[in-house]
Amino acid sequence: MTITIGVAGYGNLGRGVEQAIAQNNDMSLAGVFTRRDTESITTSVPGTDVFAWSQLPEYQDRIDVLILCGGSKDDLPQQGPEMAALFNTVDSFDTHATIPEYFAKVDAPARAAGTTAIISTGWDPGLFSINRLFGEAILPEGATYSFWGTGVSQGHSEALRHVPGVAAGVQYTIPAEEAVAAARSGSRPHLETRNKHTRECYVVLAEGADADDVRREIVTMPHYFEPYETTVHFITAEELERDHNAMPHGGFVLRSGRTGTAAAGDNGHEQLIEYSLTLGNNPGFTSSVLVAYARAAYRLAQAGEHGAKTPFDVAPGLLSPRTAEDLRADLL
Amino acid sequence: MTITIGVAGYGNLGRGVEQAIAQNNDMSLAGVFTRRDTESITTSVPGTDVFAWSQLPEYQDRIDVLILCGGSKDDLPQQGPEMAALFNTVDSFDTHATIPEYFAKVDAPARAAGTTAIISTGWDPGLFSINRLFGEAILPEGATYSFWGTGVSQGHSEALRHVPGVAAGVQYTIPAEEAVAAARSGSRPHLETRNKHTRECYVVLAEGADADDVRREIVTMPHYFEPYETTVHFITAEELERDHNAMPHGGFVLRSGRTGTAAAGDNGHEQLIEYSLTLGNNPGFTSSVLVAYARAAYRLAQAGEHGAKTPFDVAPGLLSPRTAEDLRADLL
Repeated sequence: MTITIGVAGYGNLGRGVEQAIAQNNDMSLAGVFTRRDTESITTSVPGTDVFAWSQLPEYQDRIDVLILCGGSKDDLPQQGPEMAALFNTVDSFDTHATIPEYFAKVDAPARAAGTTAIISTGWDPGLFSINRLFGEAILPEGATYSFWGTGVSQGHSEALRHVPGVAAGVQYTIPAEEAVAAARSGSRPHLETRNKHTRECYVVLAEGADADDVRREIVTMPHYFEPYETTVHFITAEELERDHNAMPHGGFVLRSGRTGTAAAGDNGHEQLIEYSLTLGNNPGFTSSVLVAYARAAYRLAQAGEHGAKTPFDVAPGLLSPRTAEDLRADLL
Repeated sequence: MTITIGVAGYGNLGRGVEQAIAQNNDMSLAGVFTRRDTESITTSVPGTDVFAWSQLPEYQDRIDVLILCGGSKDDLPQQGPEMAALFNTVDSFDTHATIPEYFAKVDAPARAAGTTAIISTGWDPGLFSINRLFGEAILPEGATYSFWGTGVSQGHSEALRHVPGVAAGVQYTIPAEEAVAAARSGSRPHLETRNKHTRECYVVLAEGADADDVRREIVTMPHYFEPYETTVHFITAEELERDHNAMPHGGFVLRSGRTGTAAAGDNGHEQLIEYSLTLGNNPGFTSSVLVAYARAAYRLAQAGEHGAKTPFDVAPGLLSPRTAEDLRADLL
């Protein structure tokens, strides 16, 4: 039994999904669908079919799960509900604040059409969310800490590039060592995001720009850099191209908690759960998560579990190509 | 809505469950059931009811989920199937090799009785298993490494205490630093359990015993110590009592994998997932996992999902006392 996947949107994430499908023997790729000129596309896996976005409805009966690879800001709010009316879907919608609204907008057409739509997979939301949930369910007396990085923040890199005198640049978010140590210590301090992370900027100066002026502009920028400990490194355009192209990311979720009760005559015991990702390539990893959840979407749809779902609704076994018997014998 | 829990067996794990129930507002404890003389029991939470094991059937209608706190060797193989015929159950059956057999033995009576029995919860099997599954489902090209410790191994401590000249002692399993570094390196070496761990023994000598003889006996013991790098420390009975009573444990599961394909014109990217537990008290943590899965067992039973289940079959959301809406808004 092969699960046939369609890829809707062909940027970094779409390319990552295309490559991940090649690593999963139980899946095949119907093709990628793009709003760009199909002739302009060179696929990363030779032989992948490229179709126009407008052809999607024709493929309704030939695709088991459509993986939505668009962005959360402009693409998914429209595409998610539209495509859930036609296909089983999986996406990585990651605007945390509007997840409930997005869930409702996808749920209605999915229920009406009898499709299954798993939203907000990936690693945050996604794997990190699952670990936040496990942490507080297992250790109700405790504190959860999410750290991000070392990795490129697109929003902060964008802000950086708008500073006068900056020709090009990239910004890394880095977990602050002291904050990480405090989170692990068992003292369960309250930590603000600004104290949990530092920011490192790699900047190519525009011709004639003054380094000190540019640095000052960056580190004093409200909201983006001012609240953080920010370091600015000046590099050449060649160095930027050579050393800062890899899109690494990652981070970790800590749950620090206590079991046992004072009533039990002791002070309880400290317990620490830590989930950590060190990603050489962020879209490459996120797309691999999308593909595993596509398998789950297919199975949930087969089981008649329709409507919008999130990673919280997906039993781990549904992600694996192996049978339940095999998993129990070999991985449990 | 309160979930009423019964505790079957009152050792370290049973006491841990008793204390964990007190940390979960949506649960109440019907009482603990013991095969010992009920009069001999002092509960760790004042006011807990203590019943004779033989009274269990009388409580069939008053207990939503019975948590089985017996051992995997002698207790659960009999109690698991027996109790699944009467109650929804949760256990921490941890003999990896016989999980398929145990699953089948519990599944039949649970299906016949219309109960839900979640077996092999805890952290290994349990949380570690889930992370092994996620790791290979997301990164199919890769290697998984499970490390255990620093923690007390009951089996090795037992073997240690049988050595002539040993009055008392405890053995810690410790992940070997070099092996951990190799597992994290991305080189994905094949590592044997014996190379992944070292063993530290804390021994109280019997009167008149020769330290060198005892050390030699220990480090050359086949299977248990000979294959490992083993260190023996001689301490006093007071030091053993004072410093080695805490039952710490933990360990970690690593998945080292690669995304991207050669076809895509690059060498792919290294990705690393790491799940780590640092437990101040092993039974305290394990029992907290049991309690979270008891909530899931209750909900699965309510939903008519009967028969034996494992952590692979349980969607994360079922573990949390919070509603799906609340989880999506706040934790996703």
